[in-house]
Amino acid sequence: MNEREKLVKELEDYFGKKVLDDFKNERNPSIELIMRTLGNAYYNEKKRLIMLGNKKEKRTFLSLGQAKKFMQTLLIASQLKKNLQEDQPAIGTRQLFYLLKHNIEGTNENTFDEQRKETDPVVEDIEVTLDTLREKLGLFAVPDGYLVGSMKVYDRKTDDTLDYTKMGLGGGAIPALVEDEYYHIKEIGAKFILVVEKYQVWQLLNQEKFWKNNNCLLMTGKGQSARAPRRLLARLNREFKLPVYVFTDLDPWGYYIHSVYKQGSINLAYFSEKAGVPDAKFLGLTTKDIEKYDIPKKNWIKLNHLDYKRIKELRKYPWFKKKEWQDELKRLEEFKYKVESDSLVAKKIDFTAKNYLPDKIEKKDFLS
Amino acid sequence: MNEREKLVKELEDYFGKKVLDDFKNERNPSIELIMRTLGNAYYNEKKRLIMLGNKKEKRTFLSLGQAKKFMQTLLIASQLKKNLQEDQPAIGTRQLFYLLKHNIEGTNENTFDEQRKETDPVVEDIEVTLDTLREKLGLFAVPDGYLVGSMKVYDRKTDDTLDYTKMGLGGGAIPALVEDEYYHIKEIGAKFILVVEKYQVWQLLNQEKFWKNNNCLLMTGKGQSARAPRRLLARLNREFKLPVYVFTDLDPWGYYIHSVYKQGSINLAYFSEKAGVPDAKFLGLTTKDIEKYDIPKKNWIKLNHLDYKRIKELRKYPWFKKKEWQDELKRLEEFKYKVESDSLVAKKIDFTAKNYLPDKIEKKDFLS
Repeated sequence: MNEREKLVKELEDYFGKKVLDDFKNERNPSIELIMRTLGNAYYNEKKRLIMLGNKKEKRTFLSLGQAKKFMQTLLIASQLKKNLQEDQPAIGTRQLFYLLKHNIEGTNENTFDEQRKETDPVVEDIEVTLDTLREKLGLFAVPDGYLVGSMKVYDRKTDDTLDYTKMGLGGGAIPALVEDEYYHIKEIGAKFILVVEKYQVWQLLNQEKFWKNNNCLLMTGKGQSARAPRRLLARLNREFKLPVYVFTDLDPWGYYIHSVYKQGSINLAYFSEKAGVPDAKFLGLTTKDIEKYDIPKKNWIKLNHLDYKRIKELRKYPWFKKKEWQDELKRLEEFKYKVESDSLVAKKIDFTAKNYLPDKIEKKDFLS
Repeated sequence: MNEREKLVKELEDYFGKKVLDDFKNERNPSIELIMRTLGNAYYNEKKRLIMLGNKKEKRTFLSLGQAKKFMQTLLIASQLKKNLQEDQPAIGTRQLFYLLKHNIEGTNENTFDEQRKETDPVVEDIEVTLDTLREKLGLFAVPDGYLVGSMKVYDRKTDDTLDYTKMGLGGGAIPALVEDEYYHIKEIGAKFILVVEKYQVWQLLNQEKFWKNNNCLLMTGKGQSARAPRRLLARLNREFKLPVYVFTDLDPWGYYIHSVYKQGSINLAYFSEKAGVPDAKFLGLTTKDIEKYDIPKKNWIKLNHLDYKRIKELRKYPWFKKKEWQDELKRLEEFKYKVESDSLVAKKIDFTAKNYLPDKIEKKDFLS
């Protein structure tokens, strides 16, 4: 049984046969789902990932508050099963919503009225409960991000071979579907991955052939990353053992972007296990870099009250409890300024590519 | 003299020599700039483009209100000239801001304190006044969008040849820099361009090989388009005579997205002349399509007060004054519903690719 067939069977067993069985045996039909509440999300110190715990909830049919959601869960599970069986192309969550939205015969009720409040949470429930990813269930999310460097990928659906050393200044688009059943990573010559927060910084590094001169993959998720770049990063790290270095602004938002690549996030705890890179290193900018690399004061920007508030929040997160991060957060507070990665051009346009990054990487001057 | 050398000379003549000459002749140094105010933007009926008029303003040195902006204009012009002369890589506007931000010696004043309010407007002033694009001045904006279909591009900076029939399910990234000095379009086999508003719709069409079956370029700018997709579209239409069809949701926002691809926008009037495609056709969704293609009522969504307000605004825009658009706007108002392009999957997952689009294109059933 391949992975797709296995998922079809699981959808059928878990959301079909089980419920049918309940009906036959005159039990209140029910399904058990892992809770995606904040209370069930936690930082797993051993795995160094934000994860969901084992708390479960029962969704039952004969319950005024749950009957509709119960029906919605079965409708979505059944549609996903059908799409997989018919080998339909992957669809977006908006399209799934429209496939299933209809009037319930003889009533004024619709199956679904809203995507965000109704369809999306059930999709997440199913992902979690079957311990899988929506992309494996034939659903995709809108991607955003670019990649260049020595990697060859075979696209199983289009028969194309993508060579990321030949993608021009624009770089290769990180696709919506980066699972192996779509996106088969064939060959990697690069020795590590540099993830850059800012598009402008990434673009300049690409023009300067940073990836070629340093034999790395150069990636950007354009700020806070969408699903696909995070998941691709995790695959590259786990399957190909590529070290991951993250380069962001010096501010709490930059630290946090790094932490999402690394440990994931509470909101998407169910996704973090599959998309986190616990070994990712924070390359910078760090407070110590400012003095070390003599980053000119004219380009520092005063921290505002939102920045200070965010620093305080980060200090409380369990995955920022390590001494080196508590120290860094404290130093930032005392420093009183933030420094954007874009600003390094003021030293020299090629300072980031020629001096800062190679030096940091050579000295392994990271936070982790 | 090539284009770059010409621009260097223009920057020098217009923002350097002229001002120096004023100083020497004891005139109040000044530069003349085309005004980018709303009052100077208009719809040119003959060219069918939103454009800037001829109103000019003088920016002078010996003026309390203008001295700083005068200095900023010269600083930016001089930096751009330097970058072009030194053949520096293109930089982003944030990077330009940091290159120029510094304390003015002996004062508490900075050259620039803010990018959006200070650097960006001056960049636009220089683009307009020299009748050029920032990309030709070595500046780029963050792009967003994907493209597939029969087109080959030679990237002059990286020596890569990009074949957009071999880009996999992710498609080719539309790069930040699509001017010929970077992005040399070598070969086009496609017969037209289909621009799709929604990423999800685009992705599904790409999976269904719509571009191959219909020999077109399939592009998305992901909603309201960034600079690069618009400019690339204009180049493909103007230089390669490719017809452009735009496919959006049935709602005033969709109509407007089409109109921006076609005539440009008031806010970026100076860009519209170079990025508009006056011959672009609105393929749909139109109000008439709903009946024609029997789009199920269960997927219509009631227009809300913002939609109605937007319809009223569109009816007043000169470029929506054509009878066919006034009629369409009126029909939408009377119809009372909007219909998203994603929703067509409810007919059948491949309805858009197999029925709707080919039929509309064959019958040339467009609004223009």
